Amino acid sequence: MEKKYLLFDGNEKQVWSTVEENKIIFQYKDVTTAYGGIKRAFFAGIGCLNNRISAMLFEALENEGIPTHFISLLDERQQLCHKVKRIDITVGVHNRICGSLASTLGVEDGFKPENTIIDYQYDIETYDNPQINEDHAVALGLATYDEMNFIRSTAKKANEVLGRLLKTADIELVDMKMEFGRTADGKLMVCDELSPDRCRFWDLRSGEKLDKDRFRNDLGDIYKGYETVLNRLIAAMGKIKES
Amino acid sequence: MEKKYLLFDGNEKQVWSTVEENKIIFQYKDVTTAYGGIKRAFFAGIGCLNNRISAMLFEALENEGIPTHFISLLDERQQLCHKVKRIDITVGVHNRICGSLASTLGVEDGFKPENTIIDYQYDIETYDNPQINEDHAVALGLATYDEMNFIRSTAKKANEVLGRLLKTADIELVDMKMEFGRTADGKLMVCDELSPDRCRFWDLRSGEKLDKDRFRNDLGDIYKGYETVLNRLIAAMGKIKES
Repeated sequence: MEKKYLLFDGNEKQVWSTVEENKIIFQYKDVTTAYGGIKRAFFAGIGCLNNRISAMLFEALENEGIPTHFISLLDERQQLCHKVKRIDITVGVHNRICGSLASTLGVEDGFKPENTIIDYQYDIETYDNPQINEDHAVALGLATYDEMNFIRSTAKKANEVLGRLLKTADIELVDMKMEFGRTADGKLMVCDELSPDRCRFWDLRSGEKLDKDRFRNDLGDIYKGYETVLNRLIAAMGKIKES
Repeated sequence: MEKKYLLFDGNEKQVWSTVEENKIIFQYKDVTTAYGGIKRAFFAGIGCLNNRISAMLFEALENEGIPTHFISLLDERQQLCHKVKRIDITVGVHNRICGSLASTLGVEDGFKPENTIIDYQYDIETYDNPQINEDHAVALGLATYDEMNFIRSTAKKANEVLGRLLKTADIELVDMKMEFGRTADGKLMVCDELSPDRCRFWDLRSGEKLDKDRFRNDLGDIYKGYETVLNRLIAAMGKIKES
């Protein structure tokens, strides 16, 4: 599949059209950004790691019947995906409360509640992505109640599936941000990416951070963290296939 | 019932203990505050209006089987209530999106969605009362899922009951803030107050504001607005009893 037109040139990836109207290509850049793009750096090869990790995690979801936009890996930096219209909500899945959510709620960073939190931030450009609930989403015309129920149950199921896979890789899935979109015929699916850029991954035993917090908080070699995630995922997939 | 000790001295009311351990007295002051107490003024008699309106609205809820802390009106400024431990959540019921919620969501002030929004603000003193959902509330130990379900269904039912009563009084119930608390034996009920200080009441036809927005936005005689609400409620109760 060949790229046709550049549809979107983002901080960390480009989206290209293809000869097939309903398929697009995600091309990952070697760039990491944080704090809404204010902090930004080039890391050789980081885009390849995000591309491969994201492909593996989407495949894990597909294998459990969760619809995603992912079709196939094209090369080290590109993947073929279904074209969707993104819903303007970032879905948060929190097994621990970290970062800005911890300071907003006044709890210790990394606090582990007994339940898993699913929450929704409205991606409204002029504001600081406010927390909304299902009622706000419906009132704003972002989604129907049925769609919000699907999003919530899908996020919970994805958390179980990925949590289990990552545990086999000696990684704790601390939290993740998920995006959802609709295909031209209205089918709702997980889209965007699932990677250390969008999730918090901690070493299961030491708690060492293997994700973008290495970049946010200047914790050292970001490439090594992401590479550890990929290598452990590959080893875990091998273990799962053997068993 | 006589007052014993001052338990709480708030901006707009005092709470007193009584000889009965599980009963308290709410005493309304002639003070109105806005913007977290930054804007503040004395209005002779406003506390009496809030006391009587709140008593009428609590009675309307009780008549429909919704548990509230209200027991009886003692005099023009005081009411006897069950003692509850308040849950640190302000429950918002929005038939229209007004004020700070409108600016947060980027919609026109007064926008009327097709659904009713129930939302939750966490009353955390050091922060600006962030929006939370049921999952955050449970994670923070504020309430159980069962309690949050009860709060949501009670808020919806209260909106229907009060919306109907106020419509008979030619008033639109635009939005309201509700508080919930638990008695010593764990019974959950609506508490605090229901008044033009905590709700938006608009004239059904002209849209004239009859609530605290008159004070917030310097729209003129606040006492007259509150008095209109009380007088129309009294007339509506008369109509309902006749029919």
